[in-house]
Amino acid sequence: MTQSTPTQSADNATTQPQARLMIGTELAAEMVTKAAVRAEALRERTGVQPCLATVLVGDDPASATYVRMKQNRSKKAGIGSRSVVLPAETTTEELVAELTKLSEDPEVHGILLQHPVPAQIDERAAFEAIAPAKDVDGVTMHAFAAMAFGEPGFRSCTPGGILRLLEAYEVPLSGAHAVVIGRSPILGKPAGMLLLASNATVTYTHSRTKDLADIVRQADIVVAAVGKANFVRGSWLKPGAVVVDAGYNEGNVGDVHFEEATEVASLITPVPGGVGPMTIALLLEQTVDAAEAQTAAGTASV
Amino acid sequence: MTQSTPTQSADNATTQPQARLMIGTELAAEMVTKAAVRAEALRERTGVQPCLATVLVGDDPASATYVRMKQNRSKKAGIGSRSVVLPAETTTEELVAELTKLSEDPEVHGILLQHPVPAQIDERAAFEAIAPAKDVDGVTMHAFAAMAFGEPGFRSCTPGGILRLLEAYEVPLSGAHAVVIGRSPILGKPAGMLLLASNATVTYTHSRTKDLADIVRQADIVVAAVGKANFVRGSWLKPGAVVVDAGYNEGNVGDVHFEEATEVASLITPVPGGVGPMTIALLLEQTVDAAEAQTAAGTASV
Repeated sequence: MTQSTPTQSADNATTQPQARLMIGTELAAEMVTKAAVRAEALRERTGVQPCLATVLVGDDPASATYVRMKQNRSKKAGIGSRSVVLPAETTTEELVAELTKLSEDPEVHGILLQHPVPAQIDERAAFEAIAPAKDVDGVTMHAFAAMAFGEPGFRSCTPGGILRLLEAYEVPLSGAHAVVIGRSPILGKPAGMLLLASNATVTYTHSRTKDLADIVRQADIVVAAVGKANFVRGSWLKPGAVVVDAGYNEGNVGDVHFEEATEVASLITPVPGGVGPMTIALLLEQTVDAAEAQTAAGTASV
Repeated sequence: MTQSTPTQSADNATTQPQARLMIGTELAAEMVTKAAVRAEALRERTGVQPCLATVLVGDDPASATYVRMKQNRSKKAGIGSRSVVLPAETTTEELVAELTKLSEDPEVHGILLQHPVPAQIDERAAFEAIAPAKDVDGVTMHAFAAMAFGEPGFRSCTPGGILRLLEAYEVPLSGAHAVVIGRSPILGKPAGMLLLASNATVTYTHSRTKDLADIVRQADIVVAAVGKANFVRGSWLKPGAVVVDAGYNEGNVGDVHFEEATEVASLITPVPGGVGPMTIALLLEQTVDAAEAQTAAGTASV
């Protein structure tokens, strides 16, 4: 790691602007509180408690931790949870059968398949077994296209959470140049589509991109979603850029070199406490959305 | 219009390289010939002739011309066509009902809804009434997500045709910077997704983009899909850029100022004769794909 400007005078150091933090924790807490109020109102009105089914395949400890965290948060928000744990050697067919059963179960309103799934499973086939009406994690092809076309549908939780954070901090999106680093189907790709739908100019970059630093340096908004610790350096950033770090690597480290980036960016998400809490909050909010919609639909069809 | 370098000497003018043309006509003719052979083979083997249903709403003369052209080409390729013409005042519900009927009709293998549709119609609702198995024009949300995720599915015909043209002219896509101008759901957006799936770095630009010329000037590949005659100027191009002009404006004029662009680009599609024929060829090819798949499925289920 190179030391940044070690010869800088104390005077200059104090005038060096430090980025403001985009903190997800409080905003997420507000979202969860609102979701809890709606969940309680639904229960009082109809007797139905929103229910999120979590499906975990295998025994990856990090995935197990995520699932447990989501269940705990659900409970605090008055959302019931159904936990399905399948062995590591589960086949695609078995997983699809389980997800289809949950999709048809009237007591389940939202379904979360924790990823990554073991290598022998066709992840896309599994995702597509989730009914769009219960796809509260926004992983289906339908959800992706809905985000791209501005149609109704659930958002992928991390990209959707990022957009809520940018809106809360009043970051201008229309006409801004957003550079997305990473193109996974549930993070980079939908993040770019949501930014494009908000009238940003969007550049998708990835492992094959040439001159990545030069491209990132043009960005008014950088979304780092690459899964490599400290990958994005301060020297890659345009002064005043808004930096969203969607990475969460070993040792609670983001994809952006935080210390370097804070000296250049105007706004930056901390890791943890930035994007992470927003992801879970949106999952819970969308679970309540789903429960409300399915309960209304159920009532209407009686 | 500014005159380009009027003081240039004759000597310089002759050493100025001129772009090579990426001609779609011949490649498209080959594709149609192959589709015709497959259509004939299917008919001989099963007695089934591939059938494309075209749906035209209203009496826009340009749309009527397009539909007629597609029907004529179908006929030449041994593909039957079913023509549905609906009055300009057709409602969304009526159009959806018609498209649903065609989606369920076992004698129809592919469905083309000619767009644009009149303003009172919800175009997305209409597109989604087309069964994905018959969406040979690649307009459904499913088709879009399949293009984005590299999953099986029909491609939007113009973007898919563009990719075929780039491949035929051996344009390197991996690591290339592609700038797409325009973000319509059936042209710009899927074109960008297909280029991204081919490992290009992709920038989406549009009416809200700032410094458009500067962004286009970084492109190794420019895809112009804005629908404005002569919109992209020669001065916007990086020397040696590959220019794909998907525009087709009044007077057979593309979105790129052709005379200026040929002096800067290395490869460029003419208008007409570039992207247009590829679009129709892919439509016919995909109609035969659909007929083969549905006939196999039908046989299997008997």
